[in-house]
Amino acid sequence: MDVNEFRQAAKEAVDQIADYHESVPSRPVVSNVQPGYLRPLLPAEAPLDPEPFADIAADIQSKIMPGITHWSSPGFMAFFPCSSSYPAAIAEMWSNAFNGAHFNWICSPAATELETVTLDWLAQALALPSCFLSGGETHGGGVIHGSASEAILTVMVAARDKYLAARTAHLPEGEDKEEETWRLRSRLVALGSAGAHSSTKKAAQVLGVRFATVPVDEEHGFALQGPALARTLEDLAAKGLEPFYLTATLGTTDVCAVDDFPGIVNALAPRAGTATEVWVHVDAAYAGSALLLDENKSLTQPMADFHSFNFNPHKWMLTTFDCSAVWVRSRADLISALSIKPPYLRNQFSDGDLVTDYRDWQIPLGRRFRSLKLWVVLRSYGLRGLQAHVRKGVSLCENLETKLRQRPDLFTIFTPARFALLSFRLAGHNEEQVNRRTEALYEQINAAGQFYLTSTVINGKFAIRICTGVAATQPEHIQKVFEALVEGTERLVANEEKTVHSLEENGVKTNGVKANGIAKNGVETNGITSNGAAR
Amino acid sequence: MDVNEFRQAAKEAVDQIADYHESVPSRPVVSNVQPGYLRPLLPAEAPLDPEPFADIAADIQSKIMPGITHWSSPGFMAFFPCSSSYPAAIAEMWSNAFNGAHFNWICSPAATELETVTLDWLAQALALPSCFLSGGETHGGGVIHGSASEAILTVMVAARDKYLAARTAHLPEGEDKEEETWRLRSRLVALGSAGAHSSTKKAAQVLGVRFATVPVDEEHGFALQGPALARTLEDLAAKGLEPFYLTATLGTTDVCAVDDFPGIVNALAPRAGTATEVWVHVDAAYAGSALLLDENKSLTQPMADFHSFNFNPHKWMLTTFDCSAVWVRSRADLISALSIKPPYLRNQFSDGDLVTDYRDWQIPLGRRFRSLKLWVVLRSYGLRGLQAHVRKGVSLCENLETKLRQRPDLFTIFTPARFALLSFRLAGHNEEQVNRRTEALYEQINAAGQFYLTSTVINGKFAIRICTGVAATQPEHIQKVFEALVEGTERLVANEEKTVHSLEENGVKTNGVKANGIAKNGVETNGITSNGAAR
Repeated sequence: MDVNEFRQAAKEAVDQIADYHESVPSRPVVSNVQPGYLRPLLPAEAPLDPEPFADIAADIQSKIMPGITHWSSPGFMAFFPCSSSYPAAIAEMWSNAFNGAHFNWICSPAATELETVTLDWLAQALALPSCFLSGGETHGGGVIHGSASEAILTVMVAARDKYLAARTAHLPEGEDKEEETWRLRSRLVALGSAGAHSSTKKAAQVLGVRFATVPVDEEHGFALQGPALARTLEDLAAKGLEPFYLTATLGTTDVCAVDDFPGIVNALAPRAGTATEVWVHVDAAYAGSALLLDENKSLTQPMADFHSFNFNPHKWMLTTFDCSAVWVRSRADLISALSIKPPYLRNQFSDGDLVTDYRDWQIPLGRRFRSLKLWVVLRSYGLRGLQAHVRKGVSLCENLETKLRQRPDLFTIFTPARFALLSFRLAGHNEEQVNRRTEALYEQINAAGQFYLTSTVINGKFAIRICTGVAATQPEHIQKVFEALVEGTERLVANEEKTVHSLEENGVKTNGVKANGIAKNGVETNGITSNGAAR
Repeated sequence: MDVNEFRQAAKEAVDQIADYHESVPSRPVVSNVQPGYLRPLLPAEAPLDPEPFADIAADIQSKIMPGITHWSSPGFMAFFPCSSSYPAAIAEMWSNAFNGAHFNWICSPAATELETVTLDWLAQALALPSCFLSGGETHGGGVIHGSASEAILTVMVAARDKYLAARTAHLPEGEDKEEETWRLRSRLVALGSAGAHSSTKKAAQVLGVRFATVPVDEEHGFALQGPALARTLEDLAAKGLEPFYLTATLGTTDVCAVDDFPGIVNALAPRAGTATEVWVHVDAAYAGSALLLDENKSLTQPMADFHSFNFNPHKWMLTTFDCSAVWVRSRADLISALSIKPPYLRNQFSDGDLVTDYRDWQIPLGRRFRSLKLWVVLRSYGLRGLQAHVRKGVSLCENLETKLRQRPDLFTIFTPARFALLSFRLAGHNEEQVNRRTEALYEQINAAGQFYLTSTVINGKFAIRICTGVAATQPEHIQKVFEALVEGTERLVANEEKTVHSLEENGVKTNGVKANGIAKNGVETNGITSNGAAR
């Protein structure tokens, strides 16, 4: 394909992509192909000779399209959104044109510098404490990773190395210090609440450190509380274990709970500034976008006592996957854990603190030019445009909650609308019936194809999650999903009564039947089973 | 931006991007902005209100473009290539249109299934042993990661967990087993040759395991040899340490050395199939593309005894960053190390081994639809088209080697052309003079702006690397870079003689002056200082 063929084929692709976006609302949300559908449609081996691009473009429509689940559909109310936008799509075209590995400044200075500037803009827009700005008093700053999982792994490595260094600082260099470091390693514990995303547990598994769960309860909306954290710390200390890291969550995956940040600060205060200081990372992967709204900005105040923060603009902020923004209070903590460049090799720019080499802020060496789409989205929408988008999702969810509350005969709110997420259950005579009915409704709605919902199970309670953050979702879709929930529940209860009646006539004892449908693919958070809340 | 505005703005971007690609050969390769150039050009905060897209597009030209280093320039002979192509660019437009987190099968079945099929195609095209195919006898398969660094970290985690499980398999579950596991963790050693890329050392640093370097020598072209590995293993055993993992390299970053795979098999044979089996990962990040050529296919035979393999189609195979293909012999090793989903939660598709959930094959949860561009590239070029591209790079480098050898008065070949990479030094009376002259030429060529080269230092010897794998590079550019090297060297030697003469007249003792130019940004491999060989 030469440059003129590219001009033509790429413009055709623009039109096909625009047509696709226009068609999404009329397509079933979730792909209904069967496992293994694709292989029989494709040759067994790569072709020897070039194929015309028109044939490939046709196959995208006929073979790939049926296997797509449409995350931009207005009926996509599952998981959390993974959002994109037209300005971000054009920015990605430019990022790919400026293709390079961009592992250090000279590889494309614009890629590094735009990232630093844009993450300062974004930190200000979220009202993060000034310690997270690149020019802040603690020499912090932001970096873009691919996912919150990578962000959490990366800061956990920094936390571990910082902790081990502090705990062995009193020992002279030598074998004793080394042995003590190894002994401490085997005692390290990373912490997260029962509502923390599973990526914290996975990071601990990757690093080979222990993981402990801090329990949460319904009374406090499943948010981590200071006293529970203090009790867990005491238990661990009694076992001779060394807690070094905590994920605190702003908007848990299941129910968008916000951990009690001031309570966490209090519980950790006795360790702050000592060799047993616990690194606190705030995981706001989804709900971080809600910090754009003035009414949420006070949430960030206690973060001045924490060590790192991340949220994913690709979730709710229209920035196209992947874009996970991470800020640290002290970039030196990241660099000393992740740099593999010995000091004698540092170049004049790095030595003079003139440039940032982001490879030392992350696991991979190479990196995509991701800040371009973030910059373009911030400018195309403006902060007010982004606020309007986020606020729309929030109010749609509040609206749905109001509707559900108007039918207490059918529904109970499990956790109220927060950050465009609510969870609810069906009414019933006992927990077993409520669980069974809720799960049956959940599978019925997903099977119908117009909406895609996910579910969660907390402390044995099955609930349906509905997230209204997708850009295309409008009041009419909220009305429709509400109607579908009402109809489905009414039909379910009617059928249930009929079945029970008929079975009892035949002398059969009735039980909840556990269905196992397509919609049950999901991920669990730690200690809480969730079929759906993922990032 | 509505859909019609997108149609227009995206088509304009297509033309601007095409214009950019046409302009690249006439631009200086490396950006010449000064550190910090961008911040003064941008507002201090994100705008409150939306800005017209035309303004943003204009800023891409006026503010971003000057900070771009052009990796697709025919004069880009630095590092390894990071290649893109028009078909890949269009495929990326579709990937972004199908935006989603794609962490499990149902998130978009096409994203998972195309990845499995395409990596089978690619494994066949490279003649990888059948154990790496998804349908192979050992239940292996391929997965796309973002970078070779992530690939290496991921397989090292799997290797660690497999090793620990095997070494403690004889102990009953309980505290003793746990304590022994912790003791073993503190003894684990990951290995790589002195030429292995620094990502192996970084992965060990992240996991908190020891790292040991196997020495290499010039006599064997800096390739890891079986006997050296055997000696290192003996040394480690004598210290009570537990080697569990080795990175073997096909095409080292410095000089494209190929480790002695049969020798590695022999050295590790006594451990194979025992509890101390060492996981061997083959890092072919750059040179893997050369396995498309029939003359290189025999290199893969010994890999049937190894555990994993990766190469980056984004380097030399026109696939646009990021796309790092990884294959494992046993996918269960990855999944048991990385899955965080308890068995009781597995859904019908996973239970029945019907679908792949790639989130359990990697560190992040979410994933981009990267296989689309790989599939499109394989079809657009066909294997013969890709072979022609790779062969062109190989023969350009051989051609340059021939030219350099015709001027033994000026140049000595340090390592001959292999996989489109060669390294050379300037002639001189002693090592010190050779180093000084070579470094001076290197900095002079880079400062001129027409070519971008990188350098390496092995065992104290400074050499210039030239990689001719960029798609746009043609015989005329090879001729031009050769002429620049000749002219530069002749001028250098002439000036040197003049300066020495003049200084000696003034009674000053002469020394090599260490310049510290922009071109010295780079990365080192382990134990070998390299200003440039990166991924």
